[in-house]
This record gives sequence, C-alpha cells and structure tokens, in this order.
Amino acid sequence: MSGAPAGVARPIRRLLIANRGEIAVRLVRAAQEMGITAIVAHSDPDLDSLAVRLADEAIRIGPAHARKSYLAVGAVVGAALEVNADAVHPGYGFLAENADFARAVVDAGLIWVGPDADTISRMGHKAEAIATARSAGVPVVPGSDGLVESDDAAHEIAASIGFPLLIKAAAGGGGRGIRIASDPGELTAAIAAARQEASAAFGDPGVYLERFVPRARHIEVQILGDGVDAVHFFERDCSLQRRRQKIWEEAPAAALDDATRERLCRSAVDLARSVGYRGAGTVEYLYDPDRGEFYFIEMNTRIQVEHPITEEICGVDLIQAMLLVAGGESLPVRQDQVHRRGHAIEVRLNAEDPDADFRPQPGTIADVRWPAGPGVRVDAAAFPGWTIPPFYDSLIGKLIVWAPDRPSALARLRRALGELHIDGPATTAPLFSRLADDPAVVDNDIHTTWIEQWLKGGQA
Amino acid sequence: MSGAPAGVARPIRRLLIANRGEIAVRLVRAAQEMGITAIVAHSDPDLDSLAVRLADEAIRIGPAHARKSYLAVGAVVGAALEVNADAVHPGYGFLAENADFARAVVDAGLIWVGPDADTISRMGHKAEAIATARSAGVPVVPGSDGLVESDDAAHEIAASIGFPLLIKAAAGGGGRGIRIASDPGELTAAIAAARQEASAAFGDPGVYLERFVPRARHIEVQILGDGVDAVHFFERDCSLQRRRQKIWEEAPAAALDDATRERLCRSAVDLARSVGYRGAGTVEYLYDPDRGEFYFIEMNTRIQVEHPITEEICGVDLIQAMLLVAGGESLPVRQDQVHRRGHAIEVRLNAEDPDADFRPQPGTIADVRWPAGPGVRVDAAAFPGWTIPPFYDSLIGKLIVWAPDRPSALARLRRALGELHIDGPATTAPLFSRLADDPAVVDNDIHTTWIEQWLKGGQA
Repeated sequence: MSGAPAGVARPIRRLLIANRGEIAVRLVRAAQEMGITAIVAHSDPDLDSLAVRLADEAIRIGPAHARKSYLAVGAVVGAALEVNADAVHPGYGFLAENADFARAVVDAGLIWVGPDADTISRMGHKAEAIATARSAGVPVVPGSDGLVESDDAAHEIAASIGFPLLIKAAAGGGGRGIRIASDPGELTAAIAAARQEASAAFGDPGVYLERFVPRARHIEVQILGDGVDAVHFFERDCSLQRRRQKIWEEAPAAALDDATRERLCRSAVDLARSVGYRGAGTVEYLYDPDRGEFYFIEMNTRIQVEHPITEEICGVDLIQAMLLVAGGESLPVRQDQVHRRGHAIEVRLNAEDPDADFRPQPGTIADVRWPAGPGVRVDAAAFPGWTIPPFYDSLIGKLIVWAPDRPSALARLRRALGELHIDGPATTAPLFSRLADDPAVVDNDIHTTWIEQWLKGGQA
Repeated sequence: MSGAPAGVARPIRRLLIANRGEIAVRLVRAAQEMGITAIVAHSDPDLDSLAVRLADEAIRIGPAHARKSYLAVGAVVGAALEVNADAVHPGYGFLAENADFARAVVDAGLIWVGPDADTISRMGHKAEAIATARSAGVPVVPGSDGLVESDDAAHEIAASIGFPLLIKAAAGGGGRGIRIASDPGELTAAIAAARQEASAAFGDPGVYLERFVPRARHIEVQILGDGVDAVHFFERDCSLQRRRQKIWEEAPAAALDDATRERLCRSAVDLARSVGYRGAGTVEYLYDPDRGEFYFIEMNTRIQVEHPITEEICGVDLIQAMLLVAGGESLPVRQDQVHRRGHAIEVRLNAEDPDADFRPQPGTIADVRWPAGPGVRVDAAAFPGWTIPPFYDSLIGKLIVWAPDRPSALARLRRALGELHIDGPATTAPLFSRLADDPAVVDNDIHTTWIEQWLKGGQA
C-alpha cells in the first residue's frame, strides 16, 4: 500500500517535494492551494530556484550531483523525516518510478504520492507490463509473440500480422539487428540479414516479428485510480518528438474519431482497474492512423511533463487529485463527470540551441517576459536573474495554451510565442514558432519521426 | 447600422484600438490571434505602453490630456483613416458609450465594433432604458412610477411596493432628498422630510417611491447579439464595490439558485432581442437575496472590465466574438452550446494605496513578478520599468483565477496573490489578500455597500 490504507483518510499536511525545476514549482502551487505546507528538497545549486523561493519551507539534500541529491534515496527520506513531512511527492524523472524509493518512503511511515512499489515494478518491467495489458484486454502490437523458428513459420506468422513488419533481434538493443520487410517477397532476405547482424552483434541469431507502423502517432491516456476504481481524463497526442523526447503535446488527439477515442480511453481504465491502480498514471499507445488501431506500449506510473494540457481541457487539477487519493480519499470524480472542452497545446521550453544541434545552454537569464492574457498558462522554473544549473535537464518552462478548437489554439500559441522574450541563453522557443506555421503541423499530418526529418530540412 | 449590414460578411482586417491600458493589450491579443492587424491609437505618454509594444502598428492621437486624445472624436477617427483601418474597437470607458463617436466612425465608412449609435443612445438614457426593459418584460425596481400626490396615495402605493422603501426627490441627485421608511408608521414623516429637503435643495418638492433593498447584490448578465438573435454567457456577481466602483468580481453568482439564474439570464436575452442588439453588452441588475428577486438597473453597451471571468467559465473569447459579429457574422454559438464550468474571480489591481484612502500612486514600477501556473490569468498593462502615467485611471492590471468551485478559486486567488510581487507604487493587491481571508467573503455574505463598512473596520 502506497498512501493511507484504502478507505482510511489520512490527509496530507506537510509535503516533501522531492524534485526540482518547473515540476517542483507546480507541486508547491498545488500544495499551497490545498493548505498543505510545501517543503522543497533541493541540491546546493537549486537553493536559488523559483521552487525554493515559492515554497513554505526548504531543506538541502545534497550537492549538485544528482546521485548525491535528487537520486539519493537515503538523503531524500532523511530530509522528509527531518522536516516532519507526512508525505513525499516525487514529481517526474529522478526517483519518480523507483520502486525502492517508494518502498523506503512507506517504510519510513510516510505517504508515497503514487502507486505502490509493486505496481511501479510491474509496470516498469516491459515484458510484464505488456503481459498485464494483454490480460486486461488492452491491444498490444501484433507480433510473433516469441522467436520465429523457421522461414516457413515466419511467412505464416507474417501473413497474420500483415506488412510492413519489423524483424527484431531478440537479444537486440540500440536499433541493431532490426530489418523491415515491406512485403512477403522481402521477408526471407530480411530475416537472414537480421539474424546475421544479431549473431555478430549479440552472439544470438534469434529474431521475432512485429507489425511496423510507418506513420505512427504517440497517443497516451491520462488515468487516475484510488486503488478501487479508476477514471480517465481523455488522451494526449505527443507525436512531435525529437530523439524520443516529446517537445510539443496536444489534447485531445485530433487524429482520433470519437469511437476510437472511447475504446482507447476505456482500455486504459481497464488496465488501471486490473492492477488496482492508485494515483495518476499514463497509459501510452502507438496509434496507427491508417488502420485506426492502437497498441499498448508502456505505462508511466507518475505524473507527466505534459499533464497541464489535460488539466486545461478537463478542468481538473491532477496534482491535487494525486494528493487527495494518496491521502486516502476516493476518486474526486466519476467518469460521467469528466468532460473535455476545447483544445490545449504545450510546448517545452528547453535551454538548448536549435541551431546548434540542440546543445544545452546553461547560463544566466538576464530577463524574461512571459506571454499572458486569455488561454495562456506558463509553468516555468525560469525567472529574471536565474542561472540555469548545468547539472540537470534543460527544461526551463512550459508554455500551455487553450482555445475552443485546434486552429484557434494554434493561433493563440503563435501569439503567445510572439510575446515571449527570453534575454539570455538560446531556447527552443523559435523552433515552436516555425512549427506552429508549418503546414504539416497545421494539418496535423505528422508522426513520431516527422520532426527528425523536418529538422534535416527534408520532406517529412 | 454599426458594423457590416446584417448577413453581409465584411471581415475586419485592420483594427484601430481606440483605448489604452490593459484593455488595449487585451484587444491587441484578440486581434492578432484572428490574423487582424492590431493598431493602437495612443497619447504621448502611452507611447511606451505595453499595448503599443505588442501592437502590430501604433499611431499618435494627441497629448496626455484625454480630451485631446482618447476623448477626441475627430483625432481618433482621423487616425483610423490615416492607418487605413477598417474597424474601430473602443474598449471600455472613454468613447465606448458615446453615440456621436459611434456615428462618426460609421460615417467615415468604418466598422464600429459595438451596437449602433441609436442603441447606445437609447440605453444610455436611464428612463428610456428602464422603459425598454419594462416593455421587454424585464423586472424593474418596484416603485410609484411617478410622483406621489398625497400621503394617502403614498400609503396605498407603499403597501403594494412593500417596506422598507425609499422616498426620492424627483429632481434629486447626489443622495440629497432621499429618505428611508422601514414601515408604514415612518412613511408620512419621511415623505415630509424628503419634500422639505427636496424643496430646499432643488426648489421642487416632488418625490417618488421605490423599493429599498438593504443587502442588495449587483448581478449582471453578459449578452452577445448579432442584430437578429442574442445569447447570454451567464452572469457575474460584482457586489464588492468601493464608491460604486467594482473591485472584485465573480462568475457565476453563487447567491443564485439555478431557477433564478435561468430567469435572470433569459430576461437579459429578451431585452437584447427586443432592441435587435448587436455586439457584446451587459445587463445589470440589483438582486434582492431575501426576496430572491432581481430588478433591471441599466445596460452597458460595451465590453466590461470584468469580462474575463465570463470567458473563463464559458470558454469563450468575448472580444473575438465582438469582432466577428461586427464583421457581419452571425452569433458564433447557439444558446444550447453555451456551457459554464467552475468558478472564476477577478480582482482589479489599481495603483492606489489602500492605507492612504486609495490615493492614486503614479510612479515607476521597478519590477513586477506575476503569478502563474494552473488557473491563473493576468490581463495587465504593467511591466518592469513602466512609468504609470498620472493622467488616466489607476487600473494597471487584473488578476483572474479559475478553479472547479468557489472555495478552490478563493484558495487559488490567495496563492496567486502570494506570488504577486510589485516593486514600485502601492497597489490594491494587499487589500485582496485580506478580503480573500475574510469570513464574510468566504461565506459569500456580502452586498454592494459591505466593503465600505468593512474598510471602516466596522461590522459590515
């Protein structure tokens, strides 16, 4: 059990925020609005952070190096006990999906704001997560479900999966030992090539087959469970990714029709219910727009960077909901009380130079003028005079816009980006202005590798 | 006809913004999101304003003195023609409800973003506005509907109005010649006293009777018309007023039950329809919480300062809606498509010192840190380094919060005010922090004169 025993309310009074950057600021705000004392655990260079400034209290947990501060289980739990916190929120990244940390928090008599350690472990193990999804009736990527023994067997399985498909080395990783077969005629040669590369790279010629989705979208469903029941807050489309890092997210996913959306969201709830999920979580899917089918990829057992767009369309505060269910309360809403309105877009402002291969740009922000006005939300760590520490990731803030529909959300994003002015290190903001004007983005005709090609200047 | 002829679309391309301060900023943003060129007409001291900075273009209309700039009909219309604007938005205040200005704009071949000059005149004349409301079936304050001829007649009328009631000098003004009678026993003496004071003050002993609502609330309905049909966007409660100036507004009005809300909002639509209203408007009512009755006071034929709280609960952009209908489009929504969600509060940040009788505080803002994060909207004119001109009103920005319900909106307001930091002239911000914690505000047990008593430290 992660939080209070189910059905037993143990409201959180003092929350240790075991994170930094914009999510620490977000957690401070959520806690303060609930009357919870917000205590930020920080490394040395983050003493001057916005989260520490806004917090009710702060406590040092270690030096700059994350292994000795934000990743140091003992230091964080010790800090929580020292400040008499009764709960720990891990944010995202760092220890957020570390089952040992979750267990250490609970063993110290504190409330862990998230699913219990066993659920974190189970969903953190890829094969086990897929097996869990499958048993809950959630579609997974069609494949050989094990090694292919012979070419004949491969052709038989391939016919049932359909083309194009991937031949993947069972012992593989890093993209090696992967081949694509576009039709049955290519299959035998592709398997041979994959086996050869797999043998050379991993000393193991075993391969398996998996459906290849050429223009796949990444679509994910936000869920919330109380250990007994679960609800969804619709989905997000996070297909604009650079090196598998999301940089621009939207809610809802405009590519889905209502019937598909309904099936997708229900499947996420089914999965959450099947494991008695408690807390906020995200069920991630690969979506095939040609077939109109979705396949489970993984579940993230934490709050995500892009949660604000869901908050904007659903009018829910997901962080506060997490704190409530962790404190032993039941779900704050029934599914039939969850409604969405309009369209939201988030762009991640990273201190990276898009014109220099996205090299991180630590340095001092001399000045920053945030956009404001209707439909504009800024969740940021940056402020004038802040020196971005070079030790952590480069996310300095998020710009979130909401409008009644996708075209007006795009227009609002353009307007807001036009108002944004950061005097200091280069950021990814100019990239988003270009993206917001790109016909493929305007037409929502993108996929998970589109931006890589776009950045190269090619036809994506 | 104010805008394009009904049914004939004449989309606005270049908008002259004939205003200043935060509403000019608001209009720039709305126009830019629609792809309309935003041109700000400014006085000399406003050259360095945020509106001019954000605008696509700007044009000087005159010196600091408003009579020679923002109130100079000829200068503003001339500026509009000079920059080849095709439309003029007057904002609020200044010339926004000046029928001659509306007429001059249309006579110059430009689109006037608002109702036609005749409607402005009609609603600007108090007696005519009340007569119009009455014929549309909108309740007005019960009264003698004319002079009372004798004490006997007064008693008869008073019985039908009910007590307490006001005896008002027909020739009155400035609060002189007004008496209250709490019951029939006080009536004869009160009439005599009022007549005496009226004779002395105005040379006219004529008096009339009107129902007195001791703990009245100011509740207003936002409407939008396209000249043919009209819709409402629910109501706002603006009962927190200092010297009849609203300082804190909420939407919806928590004091109303759904049936009363429905009747109230429908009556506003009835009034708008009865005059073929085109544009955004506000129908203002006095609400009697004891009787559960509302009475028409007046109609404002323009956008109002507090429009953002309606935008937040309804998910509508009222400025953009004004620009659309002025350009000849029909209503962007049907009534059954207008839904509200949650609760919004706006507080007006004035550069006035609440500890020094609200004396205006022109001066330079050295720094300002706006609150941010979920549910927080800032519509402001202020920015670091800005010198507040002493020539105009002292509104430097508005803080608007939204949350799923009133208690969480109050909590969010407290949090946001805690984050707000203005380094420079005193503002009304500390007053709102105190109000947000006051039990009467928390319990929504306030009325239109409550704050005056509260400021005096008395029991309101």
